[in-house]
Amino acid sequence: MTGFPIPAREARLRVRPGPAGMAAGAFDIVDTVVPEPREGEVLVRNVAMSVEPYMRLCLDDTYGPAMASPLGEPPSGSAVGRVVLSRAPSLHPGDIVRSNFGWRECFVASAGAVEKLPVIADIPAEAFLSVLGTTGFTAYVGMIDIGRPSPGETILVSGAAGAVGSVACQLAKARRGIVIGIAGSEDKCRWLKGLGIDHVINYRQSSDLVRSIGLCAPDGIDLYFDNVGGIQLEAAITVARPRARFVECGMISTYQASEAPKAPHNLIQIIAKGITLYGYTAADFGHLQPAFRAAMLNWLATGEVQWRHTVYDNLAHAPQALDDLFAGIGIGKSVVRLVDE
Amino acid sequence: MTGFPIPAREARLRVRPGPAGMAAGAFDIVDTVVPEPREGEVLVRNVAMSVEPYMRLCLDDTYGPAMASPLGEPPSGSAVGRVVLSRAPSLHPGDIVRSNFGWRECFVASAGAVEKLPVIADIPAEAFLSVLGTTGFTAYVGMIDIGRPSPGETILVSGAAGAVGSVACQLAKARRGIVIGIAGSEDKCRWLKGLGIDHVINYRQSSDLVRSIGLCAPDGIDLYFDNVGGIQLEAAITVARPRARFVECGMISTYQASEAPKAPHNLIQIIAKGITLYGYTAADFGHLQPAFRAAMLNWLATGEVQWRHTVYDNLAHAPQALDDLFAGIGIGKSVVRLVDE
Repeated sequence: MTGFPIPAREARLRVRPGPAGMAAGAFDIVDTVVPEPREGEVLVRNVAMSVEPYMRLCLDDTYGPAMASPLGEPPSGSAVGRVVLSRAPSLHPGDIVRSNFGWRECFVASAGAVEKLPVIADIPAEAFLSVLGTTGFTAYVGMIDIGRPSPGETILVSGAAGAVGSVACQLAKARRGIVIGIAGSEDKCRWLKGLGIDHVINYRQSSDLVRSIGLCAPDGIDLYFDNVGGIQLEAAITVARPRARFVECGMISTYQASEAPKAPHNLIQIIAKGITLYGYTAADFGHLQPAFRAAMLNWLATGEVQWRHTVYDNLAHAPQALDDLFAGIGIGKSVVRLVDE
Repeated sequence: MTGFPIPAREARLRVRPGPAGMAAGAFDIVDTVVPEPREGEVLVRNVAMSVEPYMRLCLDDTYGPAMASPLGEPPSGSAVGRVVLSRAPSLHPGDIVRSNFGWRECFVASAGAVEKLPVIADIPAEAFLSVLGTTGFTAYVGMIDIGRPSPGETILVSGAAGAVGSVACQLAKARRGIVIGIAGSEDKCRWLKGLGIDHVINYRQSSDLVRSIGLCAPDGIDLYFDNVGGIQLEAAITVARPRARFVECGMISTYQASEAPKAPHNLIQIIAKGITLYGYTAADFGHLQPAFRAAMLNWLATGEVQWRHTVYDNLAHAPQALDDLFAGIGIGKSVVRLVDE
């Protein structure tokens, strides 16, 4: 350690890109400093940060002031890092912690504001941003607690090669469902097939999504795990069996749009079919965290759940990593490495 | 009784009006005859028939062949009638029965195809088309079994002065909720206020429905009972509290439209708010019929539920009665009297 203050960079939101704009170009990468921690505080150097679709919504103020990231500051967001210096008894240098201070290389915070992570053999700290972190937990809540697939049920997952979708698919397989994944490239489909997903559909290669799903599920679907919304949600409503459950986890197709979403046009069918749409955010299910952690460690150990990261290097690439999510670039969880470990 | 065959009229669908067309003009009122009942059959003279929003969907074939009424025949639909002649031991002349043979004055059918109704003091047979019939049951299933309002919760009901909505409002009051009804005329609002509904909004007089609801429910709504869909559903999503329940009973605003529905534009908010949308049809809840009948008779006896009919005379006016539903004409349940009783 050298003297304080310590130089570090942060990505500050300079302009709101607007609903159809790009995150790249909307940030300043700023050289700044972090001060010496005071009693009860720790200094953390982030190893990696998460980029997630919801973050795109926070760059604009069209979703209300509570959701908008302030201009001139780094957006909040999940990161894992290493304690460099601690003035709190609960943490020691070298400890790995998860925090929510966002797009910055270093920070000083109260020890109570970070979560000390366990060290698990063969599992890198970055996995606490993905399969053992928020996206894995989101898949767990939606598929296991809300969707509750039974053996033999047919389960459709959109955004199937994404951070949440790929875990959701594998959890549905762990529950012995018949799983159809929708993704946007041949590479993604190939990866999903390799994970044991029964059917995969490349929606960019399908001229008729309803027909493509119907070929995989002639009797319709029992459960839909939605990450995409819009046209894919509309197709799922069309192919749903009576009393189907829809787990509404995300609608990425509508996050970055120059006009209000028009689909689904057939929402009315949820009445005749008796469909239930469960909107949820994992944050409302915190009581399930211990059960999730235990179950996921077991699934990782048995190989029933596998994870994959798309890794960007350097804080300066974080805005591009966020844009890439919406372009469908990247497989599994996108993370930005801030320090070579 | 005179000799057979007996002359009677039926309303036959002549042309499909198209999604934006009128039912009036799409029917032929045809003089026909009914034959003498055979062993096990009854001859029934309908007293009154129901007109309901779903019937409008059946006039076109845009919702699939299973839903489309055949051309050249009377659409199916609920009616109450009096047994004129019986060749079945379970029924006798004078018995009142409910049937589903639709838009006709008389019919002959197997005794097992009709339901004998109880005779209840002060309650006319027509009430088995409304508060004691399908619309009352639909309100019961949606509000009591699915919505489950708790005392003190704020409940929004669209189509509040309609056949289902007016019962739903009163059931929510019976459960000691704070009820906001949305309706389309001053007459409807006045009637709802007289029923004890806490707040009523005439949407035709509101330039900003979200603001109008917000004035009645500054903390938002816990439960939405939807008969309308579209713009009103969009407003309900906007004013919903976290974890609100939406009972999706109908979307009348989208049934008769020349273009695909565009609203709700804000469906994505169901994710952040953790809203559940329960689409349902009462037909899937037949096991609740006995509990419904007992509970509704009690509510009628205590006056907690009151009913109102908009009555049309003469089978020839049935198509106009159906069109009037979509024009917002009529309060409570619309019925067409086929015989003066």
